[in-house]
Amino acid sequence: MAKEVTSRAENYSQWYNDLVVKADLAEQSAVRGCMVIKPYGYAIWEKMQSVLDGMFKKTGVQNAYFPLFIPKSFFSREAEHVAGFAKECAVVTHHRLMNDPDGKGVVVDPEAKLEEELIVRPTSETIIWSTYKNWIKSWRDLPILCNQWCNVVRWEMRTRLFLRTAEFLWQEGHTAHATSEEAEAKAYEMVHVYADFVRDCMALPVIVGHKSPNERFAGALDTLTIEAMMQDGKALQAGTSHFLGQNFAKSFDVQFTDKEGKLQYVWATSWGVSTRLMGALIMAHGDDNGLVLPPALAPIQIVLVPIYKTDEERSAVLAEMETLKKAFEALGHSAKVDDRDNLRPGFKFAEWELKGVPVRIAMGPRDLQNGTAEVHRRDTLEKASVPVEGIDRYVHELLDDIQKGIYVKAARFRDANIRKCDDWEEFKTEIQKGGFLLCHWDGTAETEQKIKDETKATIRCIPVDTVVCEEEGKCIYSGKPSHRRVVFAISY
Amino acid sequence: MAKEVTSRAENYSQWYNDLVVKADLAEQSAVRGCMVIKPYGYAIWEKMQSVLDGMFKKTGVQNAYFPLFIPKSFFSREAEHVAGFAKECAVVTHHRLMNDPDGKGVVVDPEAKLEEELIVRPTSETIIWSTYKNWIKSWRDLPILCNQWCNVVRWEMRTRLFLRTAEFLWQEGHTAHATSEEAEAKAYEMVHVYADFVRDCMALPVIVGHKSPNERFAGALDTLTIEAMMQDGKALQAGTSHFLGQNFAKSFDVQFTDKEGKLQYVWATSWGVSTRLMGALIMAHGDDNGLVLPPALAPIQIVLVPIYKTDEERSAVLAEMETLKKAFEALGHSAKVDDRDNLRPGFKFAEWELKGVPVRIAMGPRDLQNGTAEVHRRDTLEKASVPVEGIDRYVHELLDDIQKGIYVKAARFRDANIRKCDDWEEFKTEIQKGGFLLCHWDGTAETEQKIKDETKATIRCIPVDTVVCEEEGKCIYSGKPSHRRVVFAISY
Repeated sequence: MAKEVTSRAENYSQWYNDLVVKADLAEQSAVRGCMVIKPYGYAIWEKMQSVLDGMFKKTGVQNAYFPLFIPKSFFSREAEHVAGFAKECAVVTHHRLMNDPDGKGVVVDPEAKLEEELIVRPTSETIIWSTYKNWIKSWRDLPILCNQWCNVVRWEMRTRLFLRTAEFLWQEGHTAHATSEEAEAKAYEMVHVYADFVRDCMALPVIVGHKSPNERFAGALDTLTIEAMMQDGKALQAGTSHFLGQNFAKSFDVQFTDKEGKLQYVWATSWGVSTRLMGALIMAHGDDNGLVLPPALAPIQIVLVPIYKTDEERSAVLAEMETLKKAFEALGHSAKVDDRDNLRPGFKFAEWELKGVPVRIAMGPRDLQNGTAEVHRRDTLEKASVPVEGIDRYVHELLDDIQKGIYVKAARFRDANIRKCDDWEEFKTEIQKGGFLLCHWDGTAETEQKIKDETKATIRCIPVDTVVCEEEGKCIYSGKPSHRRVVFAISY
Repeated sequence: MAKEVTSRAENYSQWYNDLVVKADLAEQSAVRGCMVIKPYGYAIWEKMQSVLDGMFKKTGVQNAYFPLFIPKSFFSREAEHVAGFAKECAVVTHHRLMNDPDGKGVVVDPEAKLEEELIVRPTSETIIWSTYKNWIKSWRDLPILCNQWCNVVRWEMRTRLFLRTAEFLWQEGHTAHATSEEAEAKAYEMVHVYADFVRDCMALPVIVGHKSPNERFAGALDTLTIEAMMQDGKALQAGTSHFLGQNFAKSFDVQFTDKEGKLQYVWATSWGVSTRLMGALIMAHGDDNGLVLPPALAPIQIVLVPIYKTDEERSAVLAEMETLKKAFEALGHSAKVDDRDNLRPGFKFAEWELKGVPVRIAMGPRDLQNGTAEVHRRDTLEKASVPVEGIDRYVHELLDDIQKGIYVKAARFRDANIRKCDDWEEFKTEIQKGGFLLCHWDGTAETEQKIKDETKATIRCIPVDTVVCEEEGKCIYSGKPSHRRVVFAISY
């Protein structure tokens, strides 16, 4: 095999890095903390974008674009927001370079200092609400449902490709409503759009829930989250949706005249998912041979690898493969014939396994004679000899099978690693084994912090949509009464 | 009418600004020189992106993503490039804010100064070629055909919405090739992709040609351009494609082993179009009533406006309109029923004209009785009473007609305003009238500069694909011999 991948058992973290780099998804750039997303990785992100964008638009959301830069003073307007975001950020202070008077390259022109510094957006609530002020006068102007696909920058000290980078790509939705109820419903709707997307496209089950007050978005009254379990049992927050109340409307003085003619502050939500989803996809499904991509997100769903010795054999097999490729494409699938003539089939097999292509088809001269092909599915690594006659329908159904199979595997793993825990000593050992622990909590920030300090575990969410957690009990740490269990885990 | 638009005759420049703002395409933001692209404007840009992206991919190009920031030192590597781009730019010098010790908001933390300043990309040749160095070892790694859709920042002093803004959205393609011939062919191919897109989607004819050496992209050996004529006779550069030779490969030491085992520098191209295309679209086709959108780029192709007095009439007309909407959508068109009940039909008519919707359909109770509808086409402002039976096919063909009609109108205007000119005194008066002048030029930068100084006219391009310009003559300014005419105009 060309590129060795560290096994998960040996070093899960190194396995992840190997997959990202060796499967050509992304790499570190010359700029600290910023990544280059390579074509194969970007093609997966484009598929995610395309599906999500369609789902957003179905709910009435429209795309727009707001400035990359935010005046420094905007951050001071919302007190919690500045504490949460304005601290570690990229600050633009000048707008010109000049030739170095000493003759060495270019230097910043001290004359070109900005009157007010600009922050490269870490998130856009402030600039967007300063804009909404001009868009909203009456209840007839509401709701406003905007989304933007863009880059944001947060000056992270420790970065990891896709999971935590200084610059990342994301979408941020920002909605404005006439009532609290409508805004809360929108935040709830969007976190479920995320959950549906992650389940149906990424083949990954998530738990939908509220963040504890400690873990809320800076400036939010409520943060909803989707939490996914990775193969090492850690939690990964895959998307969030915030009910912002009237905080930003008040900070930027955005009021509307209601139907009764009274001035009221506008209600807000914001919600986002990012290229972090790529990290979730890789970590949830990959194996020691490489990526395992759900067909719904695979840039190449079917790869065809010819086996031959002579030029005649090569031509004959490739001709048949081009026919098959067209048949697959006619059913809406993406297929690629790997006709590189300088690589052995075994090398190609390993490479496409590393890249997670769901279905591989190999054919040689004997297959041509027999009217068969060898069909290999990436998720289970199973092979079957299949008649070429009708292979297009066979693969069509196989892809569907793989999509479902990947989900079922992830769901079984997740369910096998969620357990109730009611004893603090047990908690301390159990939590280190990975997985989610459903525990009672007294609802205080102090208890939450103490548990985090002692075990590194955090409350991932207070689940909605599940009755399993709705029961009376006593806080695992303080012993005080509790009305429902919450999800504890160690997280990315 | 709700929103008055300045007429073109009165003030063309104000007319443009009115259209951009009043048709809800874009507006100035709180950040100097940066615009907000509003949902209606962004929907047009998304259509442009979608079509262009498909055209790029058909030529083998893949999307990727490279960092927003470029280390300052990278700009010093390519001498011409630094002169062209690094001067007016956004410079990130710090990575943290802190609470103001005086208690007033936040200030830049002086402790958090970057070792090396980062430039917000004005264009990405430098960061991309520093990346390509790691991707390219052998001739088998070539060609590399990457494109990215992203934001860039150039610190413009005088900005205009879409036409010249500090931040704008664009795509930038960057390709790497084994031979000079292949790179030149790619640059040529991509400028023709742009020309085809602008002609077929934007309904706008362009002249394809080479830039004079003076007007080349900083670091290019050749710049190809598409030049469009606006209704005031000025030229607008709508897209460029550069043959970069080995300049960036040499600056970033990108070499490959060729088939003979020899080390060679890689050959490069880059090419881009931006949200400036929005400006071209508006200025080329709009009229005194507002935008005129070619159906291929209209977010709403058909708007249905009900006419009624009573609630019963309203219900009946809206029901019929919903049926029509579905019929239009079944033919692949986007349609909207304007069911707002607080606005008069006349107001709605004016609003959709302002927004450039290609087809408007009005129906009232009498139409219902007669089985007819009033169909209005935006480009010619003509109305016709059309039987509802078969109206879906009628409108389908009408949209095609409108797309062609808008192109033909623009092409006729353009052709009527291109003329040969062989006399310098005549040139000086003629050029002020607008339009393109085809003139002989002696090929020197000095002459070009003198003509610019005296008349503000520049050489827009040295056309390819046209025999009209291939003739012997004498330079209009210096009288020296010339082998072909070039295009002079005053430009945006």
